[in-house]
Amino acid sequence: MLKVGIDIGGTKIAGGVVDSDGAIIEKLRVDTPTDTRALADAVVDMAHHLSSGHPVAAVGVAAAGFIDKDRATVIHAPNIAWHDEPLRAILEARIDVPVTIENDANAAGWAEFRFGAGRGVDDMVMLTMGTGVGGAIISANELFRGGHGIAAELGHLRFIRDGHPCGCGQNGCLEQYASGRALQREANDIADSGGIGAALAALREEKGVLHGPAISRLILADDPGAVEALRRVATALGEACGGFQAVLDPELFVIGGGVAQLGEVLLEPVRIAYETSLPGYGERPIAEFAIAQLGNDAGLIGAADLAVADAAEIVAGRTG
Amino acid sequence: MLKVGIDIGGTKIAGGVVDSDGAIIEKLRVDTPTDTRALADAVVDMAHHLSSGHPVAAVGVAAAGFIDKDRATVIHAPNIAWHDEPLRAILEARIDVPVTIENDANAAGWAEFRFGAGRGVDDMVMLTMGTGVGGAIISANELFRGGHGIAAELGHLRFIRDGHPCGCGQNGCLEQYASGRALQREANDIADSGGIGAALAALREEKGVLHGPAISRLILADDPGAVEALRRVATALGEACGGFQAVLDPELFVIGGGVAQLGEVLLEPVRIAYETSLPGYGERPIAEFAIAQLGNDAGLIGAADLAVADAAEIVAGRTG
Amino acid sequence: MLKVGIDIGGTKIAGGVVDSDGAIIEKLRVDTPTDTRALADAVVDMAHHLSSGHPVAAVGVAAAGFIDKDRATVIHAPNIAWHDEPLRAILEARIDVPVTIENDANAAGWAEFRFGAGRGVDDMVMLTMGTGVGGAIISANELFRGGHGIAAELGHLRFIRDGHPCGCGQNGCLEQYASGRALQREANDIADSGGIGAALAALREEKGVLHGPAISRLILADDPGAVEALRRVATALGEACGGFQAVLDPELFVIGGGVAQLGEVLLEPVRIAYETSLPGYGERPIAEFAIAQLGNDAGLIGAADLAVADAAEIVAGRTG
Amino acid sequence: MLKVGIDIGGTKIAGGVVDSDGAIIEKLRVDTPTDTRALADAVVDMAHHLSSGHPVAAVGVAAAGFIDKDRATVIHAPNIAWHDEPLRAILEARIDVPVTIENDANAAGWAEFRFGAGRGVDDMVMLTMGTGVGGAIISANELFRGGHGIAAELGHLRFIRDGHPCGCGQNGCLEQYASGRALQREANDIADSGGIGAALAALREEKGVLHGPAISRLILADDPGAVEALRRVATALGEACGGFQAVLDPELFVIGGGVAQLGEVLLEPVRIAYETSLPGYGERPIAEFAIAQLGNDAGLIGAADLAVADAAEIVAGRTG
Repeated sequence: MLKVGIDIGGTKIAGGVVDSDGAIIEKLRVDTPTDTRALADAVVDMAHHLSSGHPVAAVGVAAAGFIDKDRATVIHAPNIAWHDEPLRAILEARIDVPVTIENDANAAGWAEFRFGAGRGVDDMVMLTMGTGVGGAIISANELFRGGHGIAAELGHLRFIRDGHPCGCGQNGCLEQYASGRALQREANDIADSGGIGAALAALREEKGVLHGPAISRLILADDPGAVEALRRVATALGEACGGFQAVLDPELFVIGGGVAQLGEVLLEPVRIAYETSLPGYGERPIAEFAIAQLGNDAGLIGAADLAVADAAEIVAGRTG
Repeated sequence: MLKVGIDIGGTKIAGGVVDSDGAIIEKLRVDTPTDTRALADAVVDMAHHLSSGHPVAAVGVAAAGFIDKDRATVIHAPNIAWHDEPLRAILEARIDVPVTIENDANAAGWAEFRFGAGRGVDDMVMLTMGTGVGGAIISANELFRGGHGIAAELGHLRFIRDGHPCGCGQNGCLEQYASGRALQREANDIADSGGIGAALAALREEKGVLHGPAISRLILADDPGAVEALRRVATALGEACGGFQAVLDPELFVIGGGVAQLGEVLLEPVRIAYETSLPGYGERPIAEFAIAQLGNDAGLIGAADLAVADAAEIVAGRTG
Repeated sequence: MLKVGIDIGGTKIAGGVVDSDGAIIEKLRVDTPTDTRALADAVVDMAHHLSSGHPVAAVGVAAAGFIDKDRATVIHAPNIAWHDEPLRAILEARIDVPVTIENDANAAGWAEFRFGAGRGVDDMVMLTMGTGVGGAIISANELFRGGHGIAAELGHLRFIRDGHPCGCGQNGCLEQYASGRALQREANDIADSGGIGAALAALREEKGVLHGPAISRLILADDPGAVEALRRVATALGEACGGFQAVLDPELFVIGGGVAQLGEVLLEPVRIAYETSLPGYGERPIAEFAIAQLGNDAGLIGAADLAVADAAEIVAGRTG
Repeated sequence: MLKVGIDIGGTKIAGGVVDSDGAIIEKLRVDTPTDTRALADAVVDMAHHLSSGHPVAAVGVAAAGFIDKDRATVIHAPNIAWHDEPLRAILEARIDVPVTIENDANAAGWAEFRFGAGRGVDDMVMLTMGTGVGGAIISANELFRGGHGIAAELGHLRFIRDGHPCGCGQNGCLEQYASGRALQREANDIADSGGIGAALAALREEKGVLHGPAISRLILADDPGAVEALRRVATALGEACGGFQAVLDPELFVIGGGVAQLGEVLLEPVRIAYETSLPGYGERPIAEFAIAQLGNDAGLIGAADLAVADAAEIVAGRTG
């Protein structure tokens, strides 16, 4: 059965026709309009275009923000002016097949669970180290959505009491310490400090700013300042995973996002911090760590796979 | 359908015949033997005794510790010398009906969900403020068990990085800041400090030690030192609940354990801390707080209700 | 002996003729120019004007920033474009009497020590709760200046590891938790949270912003949200004073700045936190707390009193 | 001029005749009696013995604990049952020359300042990484004693709010994170964690316990677990030094105690943490770091050098 998945990102909308093995048959990308009406138009156009050449049974849409338990309404979105937006109804009025809305991190986590790094496990946690830290929880082969549909905001678990202010209105959220942006901040701090920050400072002087890929190149070249910056961010992530183990007890952590492209260079200090942060008497079964496999396509693949094809199922309520 | 529930505590074993409404038909209590063989004997005796007068379909046993996903083996127990103990098999060899093992905090949380403060909600979190902090997660009407069966160790989520050492081998665990024992520690600290600690210091001088009930009486008498001690512990709990909201998104928090007997006096500062610790742009649906209703019987009621009566179900694997 | 004291603030320059009892004989105020040359002109004009009618022996200038050990050069100023500015030489070229430069928080602390809340003690610490937190240390009747002249930056002692970013480039500095601005931030957080923040939220809605004086009025009216905001800030200050006791062992803490106008309403929660934060076995002599007495004049009075009248003394080097 | 210095340690009393260059002419060591009377006898005997062959002008005694501002009374000692003990009077009744009492960390810091790593600087801070963390502050060539004589308890500055309990009654003191004992704790934690802790775990298995010298050998052999343990402790020390810079502004930090025998291997991660923890806009003059030079003799040398030979000086009060 083919479905369409559409991932509404901050700058681009990516859509694709996805088969039941998670393979993308056809793919499209357009810029994200800032106006909500234009945005809906763009999603509808993309759905029409992708379904014109394929027998599509359903459309799944992924977006950043709080999606309600019925996967119909966007309660709040950080980048788009949606407040209690009945997005499913708006789209279904203009699309012939059932539409479901999903949080983008949930969609990406589901894709990794079904077709990527998480195949074969029943219980996993995904953490995406991008601008922020996104999260998804798969428990007993189901996506964990919570009582209002907005669980698994793992990047907003408090990591430091009274810590860095976060865009969410709180202080000390994990994403302030374990994201790609945190890596940039640590790299800048180390560049300011002299000493081991010399190469980072020189790079910043030359480029005007320290971008993630440039920091990553210095990490891979074993520059002590860049390695120290990564160590701090990886340590924060690993320590947080120790806590997630206590609460969620997954078999596997899948790490995605730009920073995860460092692969084992990232996972090694993550594991050190994780293993020394595990509560439990030395008796606790521990989880594996893996790098995400589906890259930027994970959101649209997961949205497609989570889309509910059968109207009866929607009526029956929330289902996997 | 009647089932037997048996809750193995650190000092007492409590057992009861429980009906399908969670009511206890008959109840027994014996001291907990320290020897593992004598302990098994005591559980078997209690099961035989309770089932002799009633048509019992299954036995559920609750115990502190890590219980595996199949609810058959005690991976580790903090108070009893069990390591990978095949407790279900040991008991089923001597008991005629199916036996299932459950973590005691999970059992208590399930009982509150089914028959106590959590009736009517689909997604709740229970926190028990006793010597430590126990946790249970109910998600979409099911007990959340995790990939190895040992999820919901909510008292061992790190609350303070590099904080107080915990019996689990880690530092800064929530239970070091939000348990009954934490209340005692704060009360002692305040008693040491002079100033508002005068009444606490006098009480300690008189009794030799500051016990929870005595601290509670001072709290209810509005003693400033005792109220400050409660405020600290309640603030820690409330702040932690802000984080649990981000991760687990429950509709309801149920607070149990000895400290919860303070009722609204406890919940008021918990809510202040919770509401000022919620990540999410002012748009997040928030949870209710309630005091647990089943007291010390919650463990045995939940164990009975979670016991699996149908052998077919056991064969089919993990079920609700 | 009369001296002139001039306090260069962010918006105003205040100057006065000060006698040897710390009394101000004549006083002037002008706006602070942003241009460094115009600023020097303004200071010279004020010095000339004030000394025209009085036999003035020396001029003392107070400014925010790092002043070198010789009290001649501004290493760095946060608000003015001075970098290694030889301010004493620039001013002495145009003023007939000796000039000395002093850090403004040091000058204010010295004034309180000599003529205000600190009279009669030998060892005191002053903390000014304004936009930031300023500090001064008096040890054995002398101003503690440190090896490079820039000691006593008490607001920049780290209070929370990995805490709030600070304008100084670090994270978690005390001034992020214990300043007037911190009080505003806490009040805003509580206003956002609903519950006890209702009055704060209403005030913010009405005024557009929560200013310090308005928050103080709510505190004095016993509004629970405003009192909670103060409690957080006062607790941070008191806890920090426990640490200053271990390091500096003063007899007295003098608390100044806008928040200190709350008087005992501020000092009460400060003392609770201080007394429960003192290291030392219950055997440690403790310090008193007092509210500063000289208000905004403290800087110019202290600068005048610290000004060195005798050129021989200057040649002899750093003196009290 | 020759003086006697006597350092009362937890297990040994070390005494010596010290000349005005800090050289030890003659030296003695005896076990520390636990009884206070026997302890006084031992100190008197040692003073008599050392002064019998040399023209000694004064005796200086160093001991752990709170010594009052007049250097006459032990307010409190952690290891000996002294409470407001008039130790100077007790000793002077039986010794012919003036006696002064000094805190042992202050004495050691003074010795390094006068004759060791601190020669040539005016303002330094000494930190001794032993069982705890001892501190001494030298400001403008004088020992900083504070208003009650008990300043410079640098190991008891709070490093982590709500952190590890400390023997002083507080939580989160620096000495819980940056001492030799902290190094042992971190090594044990890493040994427990598996992974990089394999060599530490094997060593612990073999020896029964992880002692400092054994951990140091693994550090010098570049074992990843031992190096990680050192990195954590050195990072805590370096971060704390960033804060001491803001408060005390020294030109030099001298690091002593057993861990300091690692030399540059210790100082390298200390400097990284220090440089990235300095408040101050990138404009702040920074301090040097040096390893202490006088080892275990520092206490007695400093006590001798601080002893006041001239009775007139004692009458005149507290002097350098």
